[in-house]
Amino acid sequence: MKTILKTALTGFVAIAVLSSCLSPVKIRADEGMWLFNAVPKAQLKSSHQFEPTQRWLDHVMLSSVRFNSGGSASFVSSQGLVLTNHHVASDTLYKLSTAEHNYNEDGFLAATMADEIKSPDLELNQLISIEDVTAVVNTAIKDSMTSQEAGKARQAKMAAIEKESLDATGLRSDVVTLYGGGRYHLYRYKKYTDVRLVWAPEAGSAFFGGDADNFEYPRFCLDVTLFRVYENGKPAKIDHFLKMDPNGAKEQDLVFVSGNPGRTRRILTHDAIEYQRDVAMPRTMNILRRREVLMQQYALAGPEQQRRSRDDLFGIQNSRKAYTGMLAGLQDPSFPATKKRQETELLGRIAQDPKLAPLQKAWEQIRDAQSKRREWITKQATLRSKLYGIAEKLVLMASEDSKSSGDRLREFRASNRESLEQELFSEAPTYEDLERIQLADELSRLAEDRGGNDPLVLAALAGKSPRQRASEIIANTKLISVAERKKLAASGTQGIFDSKDPLIQLAKEMEAEYRHAHEAADSIEEQERQAYAKITEAKFAVGGDSVYPDATFTLRLAYGKVLGYESDGKKVPAQTTLGGAFQHETLHLNKDPWILPKSWHAAKGKMKSDTPFNFVCTADIIGGNSGSPVVSRDGAMVGIIFDGNIESLTADFYYTEKVSRAVAVHIAGVLESLRTIYNSPQLADEMGR
Amino acid sequence: MKTILKTALTGFVAIAVLSSCLSPVKIRADEGMWLFNAVPKAQLKSSHQFEPTQRWLDHVMLSSVRFNSGGSASFVSSQGLVLTNHHVASDTLYKLSTAEHNYNEDGFLAATMADEIKSPDLELNQLISIEDVTAVVNTAIKDSMTSQEAGKARQAKMAAIEKESLDATGLRSDVVTLYGGGRYHLYRYKKYTDVRLVWAPEAGSAFFGGDADNFEYPRFCLDVTLFRVYENGKPAKIDHFLKMDPNGAKEQDLVFVSGNPGRTRRILTHDAIEYQRDVAMPRTMNILRRREVLMQQYALAGPEQQRRSRDDLFGIQNSRKAYTGMLAGLQDPSFPATKKRQETELLGRIAQDPKLAPLQKAWEQIRDAQSKRREWITKQATLRSKLYGIAEKLVLMASEDSKSSGDRLREFRASNRESLEQELFSEAPTYEDLERIQLADELSRLAEDRGGNDPLVLAALAGKSPRQRASEIIANTKLISVAERKKLAASGTQGIFDSKDPLIQLAKEMEAEYRHAHEAADSIEEQERQAYAKITEAKFAVGGDSVYPDATFTLRLAYGKVLGYESDGKKVPAQTTLGGAFQHETLHLNKDPWILPKSWHAAKGKMKSDTPFNFVCTADIIGGNSGSPVVSRDGAMVGIIFDGNIESLTADFYYTEKVSRAVAVHIAGVLESLRTIYNSPQLADEMGR
Repeated sequence: MKTILKTALTGFVAIAVLSSCLSPVKIRADEGMWLFNAVPKAQLKSSHQFEPTQRWLDHVMLSSVRFNSGGSASFVSSQGLVLTNHHVASDTLYKLSTAEHNYNEDGFLAATMADEIKSPDLELNQLISIEDVTAVVNTAIKDSMTSQEAGKARQAKMAAIEKESLDATGLRSDVVTLYGGGRYHLYRYKKYTDVRLVWAPEAGSAFFGGDADNFEYPRFCLDVTLFRVYENGKPAKIDHFLKMDPNGAKEQDLVFVSGNPGRTRRILTHDAIEYQRDVAMPRTMNILRRREVLMQQYALAGPEQQRRSRDDLFGIQNSRKAYTGMLAGLQDPSFPATKKRQETELLGRIAQDPKLAPLQKAWEQIRDAQSKRREWITKQATLRSKLYGIAEKLVLMASEDSKSSGDRLREFRASNRESLEQELFSEAPTYEDLERIQLADELSRLAEDRGGNDPLVLAALAGKSPRQRASEIIANTKLISVAERKKLAASGTQGIFDSKDPLIQLAKEMEAEYRHAHEAADSIEEQERQAYAKITEAKFAVGGDSVYPDATFTLRLAYGKVLGYESDGKKVPAQTTLGGAFQHETLHLNKDPWILPKSWHAAKGKMKSDTPFNFVCTADIIGGNSGSPVVSRDGAMVGIIFDGNIESLTADFYYTEKVSRAVAVHIAGVLESLRTIYNSPQLADEMGR
Repeated sequence: MKTILKTALTGFVAIAVLSSCLSPVKIRADEGMWLFNAVPKAQLKSSHQFEPTQRWLDHVMLSSVRFNSGGSASFVSSQGLVLTNHHVASDTLYKLSTAEHNYNEDGFLAATMADEIKSPDLELNQLISIEDVTAVVNTAIKDSMTSQEAGKARQAKMAAIEKESLDATGLRSDVVTLYGGGRYHLYRYKKYTDVRLVWAPEAGSAFFGGDADNFEYPRFCLDVTLFRVYENGKPAKIDHFLKMDPNGAKEQDLVFVSGNPGRTRRILTHDAIEYQRDVAMPRTMNILRRREVLMQQYALAGPEQQRRSRDDLFGIQNSRKAYTGMLAGLQDPSFPATKKRQETELLGRIAQDPKLAPLQKAWEQIRDAQSKRREWITKQATLRSKLYGIAEKLVLMASEDSKSSGDRLREFRASNRESLEQELFSEAPTYEDLERIQLADELSRLAEDRGGNDPLVLAALAGKSPRQRASEIIANTKLISVAERKKLAASGTQGIFDSKDPLIQLAKEMEAEYRHAHEAADSIEEQERQAYAKITEAKFAVGGDSVYPDATFTLRLAYGKVLGYESDGKKVPAQTTLGGAFQHETLHLNKDPWILPKSWHAAKGKMKSDTPFNFVCTADIIGGNSGSPVVSRDGAMVGIIFDGNIESLTADFYYTEKVSRAVAVHIAGVLESLRTIYNSPQLADEMGR
């Protein structure tokens, strides 16, 4: 399960990062994506007879890794080995591939450290510390401010805190908005940007069963990849890494998931749910299906186009399937009905307390924000293509760089410069034909969204059809060359303003409207932030500390049991085995996508076929948790999360443990396959040491 | 090229059938889909030195055949042989197929007449006569009537004319609205409903190059199928059928296309074009992509699901590709600009003539109708699935049957009863799993269109998610059985009202809203009809007889030259050859969809490889023309239309002959392949005799 944030919303103004749990009164047994500095110890003790020590928590936190590109991972050796999912790595595998070497499809194994290949643009983050800065952030806000003024002031304060921390510690410093504005925590990360590919199995094994098996269970996927982080040209020395426990994750075992869930929206009010159900999600689904069909058409042109589009296409199909499940959850009239009932109950409770009663207004503010969202949703002024995204950033940068860091749009602040440059100057290949069809389709979508008479549309099309216009721009832009991008960036504000590059000129045409839409979105988000902060206050008052914040693509701890479930009246077992993969292949007549790689068939006699391969547990996860280590009571690694079953797709809005399950690769299956299928006992031996 | 009308708009309230050409002043050389009773003889004589005799016209008209399911064809033997496209036949091939025999994929050849297989629900029409009834129809309209009243009165009058004609002649009688209401003609057809499959090649040859080559040229497709019509259990005796001319269709030859173009919208005003560009077409595209992705997901379940979905999926992909081209044409700002300029010019001319000046109001009426369309487009109350369609018709029939025929909804009139029953009681297989996912998706779409709080949506879902609700309905409905449908229909009005069948009950829940939306659509269409009648009057006044009506899925004559063209700077030749198909296969590395059937490879040595196979001409065609005979000056068959190139996709809105081409199978290729590949010299010999 990829983080949906990454694949579906790139290029859009993201929905406000919101927070907190569904019911203010009572949470379900294994519900929750908990902050590392607010783990529900009492609850864990009473339901699972386990009380983590601070040392246990620190070790798990420091062993956890975030892939900035949208996934989770962990340190698994003292020499910098990082284990994540193949589908988290696939973006990099794809960028490292060429027409000759298709590492994504065919796999990769570095014979020695010298053979490990550096990724063009990965940034890995290790969370070092968390500090509550709520009071400091809130000093920026005066009662007399409008939403827009307050939003700007808050952003500036957050930027100042981040800059100060970066200067003082040298660590990446992000102020994270939690509980939708109820709390602000400063997260400090150690960054790794020299990240090298060590081992990836074939896509046929990592994504065995393809789109058909995606979100299903039982599963048989070796969805893993090993990287190694380097510092100063040498493998980084890692103090905190996970030991291996190949005998763990037995049915009924308590397990922990330490990862970076991307986004949940469990705090949403009934009005916000309606907006999601009737407006935002149907629109996102239309955009996803549009992209899916476009990429499929592109892939028809030949095997090379198929290779180029495969990673994107899988990501899109994955998101589309996930959104289908989410929207189905929202369209079930019983969910909004329950939400409404709980809301009425909470509102009734606070109405009786004169100190809490004024908080009722927050729900009206959310309702008002939704009607603004309806108005603005089609007024975005951006185009979703890689090259256009680069042009847009260069054009924005030209103005932003002339402001003080705190006044800039978030991604242009000093603290984010290194990440921004890594994105702008990535050496990953750019394909002209792909850029052309994507830009044409996006111009067409802009015309549909705004109507063909819209002045911005007329300016963007310059009197041509979307297809003609895209052809002419892509044929003449120089941004495909990284050297040209660097030259342009180095030419400074004036150089970019004077550029005759047609893609830069297009981005300049759109800049004013982009900023206008961006400001409107910021203002709506601030309005929601203030309202959700009040709603959180109400929930804390009524529900005590059983309140965890919504996911924010930052490190969280979830927990649950390894546990089978019932589906369509049949018992689904908690674990599968390596041998089961061959049976699953036979059951599907060895037809694509149920074809195990040759390496598997060659090793069939050698491997222990009863080795655990995949398993499910009740931990509360969501997109972004991909690659998260699954850890035992003893703090050892028993598995790695790679998916959720189809019943878990409502997790964005609510958790249920009856049939909803997280799906993981068992670490025993990883080690056994490394030894017997991929002939690398040395890597298996290095893991955990 | 399938008729887009059929594949994309089934179940929707169709856009008003509109009419007349783009420019009131001057048409392009080979532009026009002409009425058989108004062929532009002077124009033909001056540009092509050809003057058709009445005898020539009658022969071609009577040799032409309409497939009521959405395509064209022709009689090609005295014993009832009918030649159409494989993709027009595929709906039937699919219905005749089972898990054991896949006639669509593997082809079919009846060894003797006794082996010919009867299709479950085909209706073929042969146009016998055309009569102008404009004056009679218009007697129904009084100035004092509202649009809604006028619409009803007009429908009733048309029904009365149809009934009278049916009673008098026994022929199918349709009053056709031409020039968007400027003229009404009575078309009388001889109907054939005993239609048997004689020969179909493999899909691999008919659709060689698949979705990738669709709308492209050069092509190498044997997109043909032979049926035979029967009367009283014997092959029908046919007086008018086409002779074969395997030496025709040479470059520069004048050719004629006699077929049933489905719909064009060249009369649309600038405001109506904007509505199409900004609202209607983007919405249709979203629905098509949605269906495409849904059917692809369904097909993933296995080979049987792939077989079941293949025909629908091809149809959807075909429409989606066609709409993409059309929308691209509309989004080119130069098209609406030209339209606007022509409109301003025409308005300027009529403003100067006091008799014509009042007609100017018509453009305002069209503008007003577009804003009503915007309001109603999401308020449809129907679901696009086969079984729901049957339930809906049974429920409507229960009320309609108690009215006099002229007051009924059009499809329930006495004159249409046989066609309706053929549809309701078709023995074509119904697949429970397919019905379930389609109904679930349609319920979900209804909720998106109307919002989750809409009373109709809440009633339709009955407290469940779309998926649960669809599962429960499909598990319990009896409409899958044709016998049960007949029983229900026979139980009469009261029986249907009392039915406890869940699908019937769902259709009853939706009936009132369906009728409401239907009435609104009728009223908008009547408003447009009256306005376009006035616009047509203005055009006739200014442009004389260079005005042909928009396509209405009735018989038309188009003409043009066999002619190559230039694309991306390269010369595209007018003809391809049978031998070229093998080269095309090699060029694409013999990969799917470029795999010729085994039968072709086996016959490679035997066939004359330089036999013409496919060719292009400048005739003005559109979806619905699929299967149209291409006829020489001598009235002999030289080919059969099966596609248009991608540049022709704007034909819905405007014709251009520079690079826009109709694509046909050459009759020489059909005859040679019948003899050498399909080992049926007797069929080849029967053709033309």
